[in-house]
Amino acid sequence: MVRHDYERRLRNCSELMSQAGFNSLLLAKPSNMAYLTGDGRLCAYAMVSREGKVLLGVPKTDVEDVRRSARFDVLDGFEDEVGMVHSIAHAFERIQLTNGSVGLEYTYLTLSMMGMFTHPHAKPPGVTVKDCTHILSELRTVKDAGEVELIKAAAKVADAGMAAAVKAAETGMTESHVAAAAEYAMRNADAEEFWRTYISSGPRTNIAHGLLTQRKLAQGDLVMIDLHPIVNGYSADICRTVCLGRPVEPQAAAYDAYLTAQQVTISRAREGIGVAELERILQGSLRDAGYGECLGPPIHGVGIDFEESPLPPGHAFFHGEKEPSPLRANVVIAVGNCGLYTGPWGVRVEDTLVVGPQGPTVLTTFERRLEI
Amino acid sequence: MVRHDYERRLRNCSELMSQAGFNSLLLAKPSNMAYLTGDGRLCAYAMVSREGKVLLGVPKTDVEDVRRSARFDVLDGFEDEVGMVHSIAHAFERIQLTNGSVGLEYTYLTLSMMGMFTHPHAKPPGVTVKDCTHILSELRTVKDAGEVELIKAAAKVADAGMAAAVKAAETGMTESHVAAAAEYAMRNADAEEFWRTYISSGPRTNIAHGLLTQRKLAQGDLVMIDLHPIVNGYSADICRTVCLGRPVEPQAAAYDAYLTAQQVTISRAREGIGVAELERILQGSLRDAGYGECLGPPIHGVGIDFEESPLPPGHAFFHGEKEPSPLRANVVIAVGNCGLYTGPWGVRVEDTLVVGPQGPTVLTTFERRLEI
Repeated sequence: MVRHDYERRLRNCSELMSQAGFNSLLLAKPSNMAYLTGDGRLCAYAMVSREGKVLLGVPKTDVEDVRRSARFDVLDGFEDEVGMVHSIAHAFERIQLTNGSVGLEYTYLTLSMMGMFTHPHAKPPGVTVKDCTHILSELRTVKDAGEVELIKAAAKVADAGMAAAVKAAETGMTESHVAAAAEYAMRNADAEEFWRTYISSGPRTNIAHGLLTQRKLAQGDLVMIDLHPIVNGYSADICRTVCLGRPVEPQAAAYDAYLTAQQVTISRAREGIGVAELERILQGSLRDAGYGECLGPPIHGVGIDFEESPLPPGHAFFHGEKEPSPLRANVVIAVGNCGLYTGPWGVRVEDTLVVGPQGPTVLTTFERRLEI
Repeated sequence: MVRHDYERRLRNCSELMSQAGFNSLLLAKPSNMAYLTGDGRLCAYAMVSREGKVLLGVPKTDVEDVRRSARFDVLDGFEDEVGMVHSIAHAFERIQLTNGSVGLEYTYLTLSMMGMFTHPHAKPPGVTVKDCTHILSELRTVKDAGEVELIKAAAKVADAGMAAAVKAAETGMTESHVAAAAEYAMRNADAEEFWRTYISSGPRTNIAHGLLTQRKLAQGDLVMIDLHPIVNGYSADICRTVCLGRPVEPQAAAYDAYLTAQQVTISRAREGIGVAELERILQGSLRDAGYGECLGPPIHGVGIDFEESPLPPGHAFFHGEKEPSPLRANVVIAVGNCGLYTGPWGVRVEDTLVVGPQGPTVLTTFERRLEI
């Protein structure tokens, strides 16, 4: 269990709450709860007062585990959803909030959860409700030194997973077998979890959101491997495309163009540049090489979540994210999230990096080579 | 890719829509979309008219993949969220719905997604919005023969994962190593994905929602292993508790009491009995053995999702599920989802079974034995 400077995080949170006119936050998104308290789990809430007091509510079964791992002022256990509603009511009482505003995560709460959190038995009638997504995004975008070290460690695990996946990618193996090898290696390198593992092969490299299948790899196939381990609560994101055997010329050319575009974009990632500008660099490089645009949002932030702020507007406008401000030092991003789909196959190379004052530090380092 | 009888499912859906007064459904939950169309993915929607027409909208990058795998009447690709809003507007136009009602998944949609789906540029002003969670729950609760076969196949994969996990559970190995072995075996047995793998050990068996850690297993530890593979789109749920070495007497006694309670409950799972009654049988058996209640909802449905309808009211009241009606034949449930926490450790045994007219068919069969 890694301890972060929760006092500093809470002070910063209080400041943003004051600026935005929030009297309290009522959080349920695990990554947001983890950021402020050290523990994020489902079926739980964190009430944060503007003064920085933290009241946690968790299932009764989890109280002892949370007591060991979280930083809080008050911890309450409940038995079921009705108990959770009453627990939230008590939390409002304890921070003495009867008038004012409470921030909720509109990008995370379902309509039903919203119904619970604003139930007349939970929320005082005088308390108004507003979206607080941007407060937590703003807090979490710039990483502190400890976080950068953890993302670096996750990137090493991602590299180990990629090495195992590339080794397992042989004719006759399935996409599922490749995932098995990658995840086994990452677990054994101390990943506690992974976000979805995407493996696609042959004609299936031409899609963005397809889950993996039992398709058998064949000689000449491209194989796209996209991994996202979680290690000590922090994530990394890596994608490689490899060819089983010798790529045909259009595959080699498309790969080279993509890799060039990605590397040029990465080299420009420094304090002060905007995400939209980086995206233009990437797409412009592909255009200059005679290709169309690559599809999907090319860049996203990486941290506790493997996709977090800064998020591009086309991907996140309706999710309540603001147009991201220019990158600051110690923002961590992944570059290469979009696919170049030029025919019956696609290519993609993605890396996680830290933005620095002078340039990037690339954290995922597994070799970028189409031929294996 | 397994093909189901989507025509029949859509006819049943239309009938429930008529009864409940819905003119259309606008779905985004992957499991619901998969049930009606054969494809469920993120960042997509399915508009279903009362006449059973299906209009799918997916990211432009995914159009070809969806064309291969889904059953639909109209397929549209969009580039970003603004494109998705316009695509939904077109879908309303195509089914000529300008007045009437559309059903949305209040237990799945976030406030932000709700904002997109009901955006003035998406939804005609004359169309009202209602929760349709119960329609899809009702449709999916009773499984057809093909579904039961798929859940049986997933249960075999779960058994294989459990065998690998129990074999890997040795002194000095971490919880993460045990998960690695289980997931590797399940992937190689053709699991395309798993819901979260829970491994807890020693004092950590005393919690319900704790993620796994790098804790090293020690002689005398109890180890709780909870697996949920997805195979061809369907899930299974199995949990076993094992002891490294000889259990102390209170552990053996608690385990025996739990296993007895679980097995008695399973034996009573037949058409006509209520979930609440089964829960009382389980808790009563533990009470008769001199223990307190086991914590957490003891029973839940299993299907495309590993936790689905029937869901117990204490777990799902605010999530929009109704009090479940008595079990029908071919409902698939897991029994043993609650933990008996009697001291610095806990025990749990969970199995997936099909409810039959005369009794259950238990699908997960790995041996139930504390000593290994």
